[in-house]
Amino acid sequence: MYVIAVYDVASERTGKMLRLCRQYLHWIQNSVFEGELSAVRLKELEFEAEQIMDLSYDSLIIFTNTHVHRVEKRIVGVNKQPIDQFL
Amino acid sequence: MYVIAVYDVASERTGKMLRLCRQYLHWIQNSVFEGELSAVRLKELEFEAEQIMDLSYDSLIIFTNTHVHRVEKRIVGVNKQPIDQFL
Repeated sequence: MYVIAVYDVASERTGKMLRLCRQYLHWIQNSVFEGELSAVRLKELEFEAEQIMDLSYDSLIIFTNTHVHRVEKRIVGVNKQPIDQFL
Repeated sequence: MYVIAVYDVASERTGKMLRLCRQYLHWIQNSVFEGELSAVRLKELEFEAEQIMDLSYDSLIIFTNTHVHRVEKRIVGVNKQPIDQFL
């Protein structure tokens, strides 16, 4: 399924969350990631995130859509995605 | 249509972007907003954002989906949405 993930965690945990999310999804901007994941892989991501996060303080929002072609994305301003993701 | 908007702008422009996005959408977390907007209202939001943004530096990503019920949202950790949005 198509997944958008956005985290908001204390600064001492941003590095770990960034590395984790990059293992599963494409970085888009700031703390925002997107990509295609199976339900199992998404569960894995959530489980690993919970090990990193302070669940009383941090937040991870996951949007999912079974039909990737139904989600459109437009970027106003700079596209901050690294070009090598398209290679 | 259902809209998710995420901005990444220089700190001196975050206040203006926050106020703008709040006029159109519900704040979810950090610089992330969601809500239902008509195509016209979305165009207005984009136009106004462009007036605030430095388009060579800042970024605003807009995800749209015509079917809100096809997008699911889960939050791991803290739900940072203010309760008064549900009143």
